[in-house]
Amino acid sequence: MSVSFKLLNENAGGRLGQIITTHGVIDTPAFMPVGTAATVKSLLIDQVKSTGAQIILGNTYHLMLRPGIERIKRVGGLHQFMNCNLPILTDSGGFQVMSLSKISKITDDGVYFNSHIDGKKIFLSPEISIQIQKDLNSDIVMIFDECPEYTKDKNRVLKAVNLSIDWAKKSKIEFGNNPNKLLFGIVQGGIFNDLRKQSLDQLIEINFDGYALGGLAVGESQQEMFDVLDYISPFLPREKAHYLMGVGTPSDLLGAVKRGMDMFDCVLPTRSGRTGLAYTWTGKKNLKNAKYALDDTPLDPIVNCPASNSYSKSYLNHLVNSNEILASILLSWHNVAFYQDLMQKIRDAIKNNNFENFYKENFELLNS
Amino acid sequence: MSVSFKLLNENAGGRLGQIITTHGVIDTPAFMPVGTAATVKSLLIDQVKSTGAQIILGNTYHLMLRPGIERIKRVGGLHQFMNCNLPILTDSGGFQVMSLSKISKITDDGVYFNSHIDGKKIFLSPEISIQIQKDLNSDIVMIFDECPEYTKDKNRVLKAVNLSIDWAKKSKIEFGNNPNKLLFGIVQGGIFNDLRKQSLDQLIEINFDGYALGGLAVGESQQEMFDVLDYISPFLPREKAHYLMGVGTPSDLLGAVKRGMDMFDCVLPTRSGRTGLAYTWTGKKNLKNAKYALDDTPLDPIVNCPASNSYSKSYLNHLVNSNEILASILLSWHNVAFYQDLMQKIRDAIKNNNFENFYKENFELLNS
Repeated sequence: MSVSFKLLNENAGGRLGQIITTHGVIDTPAFMPVGTAATVKSLLIDQVKSTGAQIILGNTYHLMLRPGIERIKRVGGLHQFMNCNLPILTDSGGFQVMSLSKISKITDDGVYFNSHIDGKKIFLSPEISIQIQKDLNSDIVMIFDECPEYTKDKNRVLKAVNLSIDWAKKSKIEFGNNPNKLLFGIVQGGIFNDLRKQSLDQLIEINFDGYALGGLAVGESQQEMFDVLDYISPFLPREKAHYLMGVGTPSDLLGAVKRGMDMFDCVLPTRSGRTGLAYTWTGKKNLKNAKYALDDTPLDPIVNCPASNSYSKSYLNHLVNSNEILASILLSWHNVAFYQDLMQKIRDAIKNNNFENFYKENFELLNS
Repeated sequence: MSVSFKLLNENAGGRLGQIITTHGVIDTPAFMPVGTAATVKSLLIDQVKSTGAQIILGNTYHLMLRPGIERIKRVGGLHQFMNCNLPILTDSGGFQVMSLSKISKITDDGVYFNSHIDGKKIFLSPEISIQIQKDLNSDIVMIFDECPEYTKDKNRVLKAVNLSIDWAKKSKIEFGNNPNKLLFGIVQGGIFNDLRKQSLDQLIEINFDGYALGGLAVGESQQEMFDVLDYISPFLPREKAHYLMGVGTPSDLLGAVKRGMDMFDCVLPTRSGRTGLAYTWTGKKNLKNAKYALDDTPLDPIVNCPASNSYSKSYLNHLVNSNEILASILLSWHNVAFYQDLMQKIRDAIKNNNFENFYKENFELLNS
């Protein structure tokens, strides 16, 4: 099977599909746990796989700063370096340069910024980002874009859209002919529909293997995000994967699948796990809370994961309040498993043409 | 089989044995990973078991302060609370009261101290400690003793020996008739041979299921510790288990087995793991060190553990320097596995009457 996206069914806005990569098949809609610095935080890759996750995400920005790309390239890429045989998608660094570093200058060629780790001055361009992602040997490569902060200044967003299109072309040229990888474009345009449409149209002209929506979940409300999806989704090429970047909460995911999205990534399940928060089929739970001190029931018996059903909330409450690393491990593991359980149930519902009912039954619950 | 200790072979000072508990058999010489606060830090209990560990240790002192004994008792004990089906030995709190808390008063009845967590004033006595350990439902219970800091003041140590004997009697009475548990006495006496002998003789008179040596590895040199063992070991009842508490480094363990010790516990493998240190069959390694940045070999191919042989030192060096939780997980897991591998090789050597050779071949290496 050649590296590609296949659409298998559509139902009530949701899309069932598969992404074929040389490292394995990914059933969509899919949630990708984030492995920023060559590790999904607090978890062994076998634990990540045990949840049903079929792909993880790595970050160009973090990896170029530490440990540096040469160290990863010399052993064959990120899969080998971190001992991960799952497919890997790498982000291009565009978003992290904006959100984490101190940018000193943006030119037509790229971005000069200072590392958030040691302040070192670094240059990142479309050509460098794609070359790094090739060195990391990721299965899905993202174009390098300029991703502005959330703003209502339309001129600012228009400038970013235009520059990002230019960089998308350069990214595509640098990517070249690469039959074993997929290259995704990133639609910018903030909350401005006409700019989103302009960005998408120009990306389609360049022609990518998938289309991502960037610059969302950066401060706007869920409704504002859904409004953007409602507008842009009908224009996304039906036969290509649709990736909503950096999203989101469980209800964000369900609402976005309803609006035609196929792929997601977010640090929320692991970051929340490290602060004592658990997502469950009976709502979000803060395990620090004293009300769990005498609760002998497991976190979520529905989720098929040892972290979800083999430990009492009383024990987890103790671990969280004692700052034990095992709290981070178990809650991260559970949260990733819950996200995968949600995606599996979404896929089942689309497959069985029951997605409208599933959406109605679960959206409010997941939003609680 | 009834709960007991069985001596199976003796060779060149080393003793091969088995401890039978209702939760399983423990092959000795045995190293017990420390699960202070109802978790072996950074590890799932399944990972601990995968290393070959057959028993873990829990702490009366820590558990009584947090989460409190009632919460553990109400679910049936520590095994249930932490979801651990391995045998558990609980320490009595005597050592932790001395080393962690602010002691306000020691009377003939017990110790008044302030919690190191919230400063709360607490009283611990032989009766309370044993009752707590019964509530925790541990398989091996330790008497409550007064464990003075390392000192050359013989009068201070003598006072502690005398008080501890009194408390040993009270502990034994409180323990009562308990055919499913073992009760161990603790020999005190610091570095004074005559006090050690006096303490042991009086404990033997009370009669315990095993005899522990307390108050070692508290600041004295390895040679001073070995000198105490050389002196006291011939007097320890041959048919009972000999437990050297809170010890130690890999060479400490080998040297102590040579001097007739059967059981050990220490936080070193997990604590070292959290600071980037690994014990291996080619010596101790600090994974923070830049010399591992380009080292693609695993930590220790001899040790049968994924953490030991499935990740490169280059990757571990990256995780340690990035303060990733996975560094703590992998290095703790490896270190516990290395300790278990050492104990297995020691047991094999004693079984095959080859312990003298094993000792000579490995002591200096392990001491490096």
